[in-house]
Amino acid sequence: MNNINLQIKFIDLIKYFADKNILINSSLSENELISGISSLENANNKQISFFEDTKLVNFLKKTDAKACFIKNEFINLLPKTCLPIIVDNPYLCFAYATNYFYPKRISNAKVSQNCSIHKNVSIDDNIEIGNYVTISENCKISKNVIIENNVFIDNDVSIGENTFIGNNCVISNSIIGKNCLIKAGTIIGGSGFGFTVNEKISIEHIGNVIIGDNVKIGSNCTIDRASIDSTIIEDNVRLDNLIQIAHGVKISMNSIIAAQVGIAGSTIIGSNCIIGGQAGIAGHLKIGNNVKIAAKSGVTKDIKDNMTIAGFPAINIKEWKKNMIKLNNI
Amino acid sequence: MNNINLQIKFIDLIKYFADKNILINSSLSENELISGISSLENANNKQISFFEDTKLVNFLKKTDAKACFIKNEFINLLPKTCLPIIVDNPYLCFAYATNYFYPKRISNAKVSQNCSIHKNVSIDDNIEIGNYVTISENCKISKNVIIENNVFIDNDVSIGENTFIGNNCVISNSIIGKNCLIKAGTIIGGSGFGFTVNEKISIEHIGNVIIGDNVKIGSNCTIDRASIDSTIIEDNVRLDNLIQIAHGVKISMNSIIAAQVGIAGSTIIGSNCIIGGQAGIAGHLKIGNNVKIAAKSGVTKDIKDNMTIAGFPAINIKEWKKNMIKLNNI
Amino acid sequence: MNNINLQIKFIDLIKYFADKNILINSSLSENELISGISSLENANNKQISFFEDTKLVNFLKKTDAKACFIKNEFINLLPKTCLPIIVDNPYLCFAYATNYFYPKRISNAKVSQNCSIHKNVSIDDNIEIGNYVTISENCKISKNVIIENNVFIDNDVSIGENTFIGNNCVISNSIIGKNCLIKAGTIIGGSGFGFTVNEKISIEHIGNVIIGDNVKIGSNCTIDRASIDSTIIEDNVRLDNLIQIAHGVKISMNSIIAAQVGIAGSTIIGSNCIIGGQAGIAGHLKIGNNVKIAAKSGVTKDIKDNMTIAGFPAINIKEWKKNMIKLNNI
Repeated sequence: MNNINLQIKFIDLIKYFADKNILINSSLSENELISGISSLENANNKQISFFEDTKLVNFLKKTDAKACFIKNEFINLLPKTCLPIIVDNPYLCFAYATNYFYPKRISNAKVSQNCSIHKNVSIDDNIEIGNYVTISENCKISKNVIIENNVFIDNDVSIGENTFIGNNCVISNSIIGKNCLIKAGTIIGGSGFGFTVNEKISIEHIGNVIIGDNVKIGSNCTIDRASIDSTIIEDNVRLDNLIQIAHGVKISMNSIIAAQVGIAGSTIIGSNCIIGGQAGIAGHLKIGNNVKIAAKSGVTKDIKDNMTIAGFPAINIKEWKKNMIKLNNI
Repeated sequence: MNNINLQIKFIDLIKYFADKNILINSSLSENELISGISSLENANNKQISFFEDTKLVNFLKKTDAKACFIKNEFINLLPKTCLPIIVDNPYLCFAYATNYFYPKRISNAKVSQNCSIHKNVSIDDNIEIGNYVTISENCKISKNVIIENNVFIDNDVSIGENTFIGNNCVISNSIIGKNCLIKAGTIIGGSGFGFTVNEKISIEHIGNVIIGDNVKIGSNCTIDRASIDSTIIEDNVRLDNLIQIAHGVKISMNSIIAAQVGIAGSTIIGSNCIIGGQAGIAGHLKIGNNVKIAAKSGVTKDIKDNMTIAGFPAINIKEWKKNMIKLNNI
Repeated sequence: MNNINLQIKFIDLIKYFADKNILINSSLSENELISGISSLENANNKQISFFEDTKLVNFLKKTDAKACFIKNEFINLLPKTCLPIIVDNPYLCFAYATNYFYPKRISNAKVSQNCSIHKNVSIDDNIEIGNYVTISENCKISKNVIIENNVFIDNDVSIGENTFIGNNCVISNSIIGKNCLIKAGTIIGGSGFGFTVNEKISIEHIGNVIIGDNVKIGSNCTIDRASIDSTIIEDNVRLDNLIQIAHGVKISMNSIIAAQVGIAGSTIIGSNCIIGGQAGIAGHLKIGNNVKIAAKSGVTKDIKDNMTIAGFPAINIKEWKKNMIKLNNI
């Protein structure tokens, strides 16, 4: 998968990190060539690696890497063939290094002959559109957008600059911002699960989905349009795979949601929240800012800012942990 | 998304509701033009709205709507610019109004040139078939059916009148009734997860899926064919998104299942059941009629008619709630 | 769905079972013709059936089947028209019989005209490729592979002999073994959910997915590529539908995972494990061999070989059951 011809001078990496205000302290020669970053276990002697997880100390001792991002306290554990690159936060350096060595895919500005684009679609420069894609009337596709294969984009959808739409996605009734990444198989803007409980009269959904900038959405997620008004995913939100976002939900800026979470209709999630995998949040709730919700929690009422909760019904995580201990000790 | 030119006389809305045996009591002029229904917050002065959720009282007081479905007891909260439409059940009126203003999509009777339909497929009048659809031998597609894009329909599938098959669905080994709505990305009729536990001999699935009339199925669901016999979804059942229905399950009439529920092989769900999100039901069980299963429950044994259960293992919801209180109070 | 013209002499079935070291003891004539296997309830008088689940005794007493796999102790319950085929393990015989009567689909060696295959793809003999499939540069498709419709296969993917890729799958950055079955809508090799928690720097994923031989993967699953190194699914693993396998997970040989399970990043699952539906396993854990994890469990720490665990946080299943009883009895 890697570019085997990749070769970068160490000095260029130092400069890249300097731009991020990260000082690199290493005896590795500035002209040394590096061909990428890899794990301690699999790095070859042309690659660099990083040491963060102390469970991996045995791999550290035997690594073939040419050099290693490492905290000062661990440098004595390195084999002699591997030079330390002493940093405060090796994992952060690893993250930056992946962006340096293997930058985000950019559009190759090719529109497949095997796709179907309505004549009244506004298409900006440098677009990539794959095979068997359908784009319907009045859509707006901004510059540098990549749309992979077998995608369907319904009437009136707009997609902002540099956004990536993965294979087999379906997008309708949506406004999508810039620099977003929507992974394969995700369905955005379908009608919600709305009806009157007693009479079972279906509600025809007429709202939409609004997705901000720099949003990342995983694979095979479902994000329903609002019944009226909008389902909203604000800037910098990150969703993992197989997540259900019901009609009229709002997820505020910078929140992070792990796989298989479900959020029921009209609930509002504050900004900077972190929601663990398989958690469920009932409808019509207001979750504050900076809330942390443990994996598998079931949230049944409003949650104030800065709380950390767990369990079902979800309570303060300290109480929940106490309860679990009490139960074991009865 | 709305039709901005939509204009309906209030008298026509009154007549529509009269057909549903709902009496409209309002001082709004019968000749007044209405351009749709919206939320209290977003309605403009040509639209009507509704007030049901008392949390929204601040939006009620400031709404720009021309008129509002509202209970008599709340009419004093309306701003002077918004006339009350006094009804017993504003939310029901809202639901009906969405159907009145924005009726279900009907087939435009266009079959794409970019699809692949076997010559031995029976296709009735007024069908819509999207791009990159494949329909295999001996299928039967009834009148007014809409099949969106990138859909695959395998041999011998039959689809009843007025049924809608969303984008990127895959349907095999299935008989689907009338007036159904199958949303995007759902897989119906795949082989089940069947094998002998000790010897790990796979069971080749030869059964099918039978879906009744007026069934609604959400996005990215998976409904497996039976190993022998049939997986059955009866009339008027509603499934939300990301639901797993295993081989040989039967879901009886009118039952409602929220997102991310999983039902294991050969379990029978009675009629008029309501199953909350992320609940799981073990295999080979019999759940009675009118059973309510709380979100996130794990059901491990047969459940009698009319029970309401919660927890894992699921028990009577009152017992479960008591247990949760006991645990907090020890 | 069945082949209605199917007719097999009983002696041939006896021989097939003899090859599996299963002795068939029946008074059914060796020349009798059998047209398949069905359930007790639905079998006709040309078919055989099996009796394993004692809940089905009323169907047994009224079955129209010609003969029935049955344990010796139950033969008196059969109607006179149905001859016993006395065996120790009727369900195993049923499983083998489904493979005998309805063998796995084999490639019909037809490549659709409506697909897009890069000129630098290595394609072996006897391949079947459906409509609207895209196969990108440098892929290797081995003999007897079946790729259904609307599939996208990205650069450099290799697929082993006899493997089946279902409709609407998306496969990238992957090496897939022989005799695998990947069901519809599954996404393999997408980038993982990786970033630094504090700084929110995304990690560009450069690893891959390696899938062994005889692996079965259900519908609408998501299996992410590793950040570096590989996500690994070893030989004979079986995954049900809607499962999330995060970046860098390893699932060892013969393990079985039920629907809607989620496994977080870098966790290692041992061999011969069984994981119940909707269980969740946190990241960076090591689950031993032969571990059984009950449905809906939440696993938060390493688990030793041969344990059976349940609950959240998951503990020894006996302790968990005791806790549930204690809670009811306080």
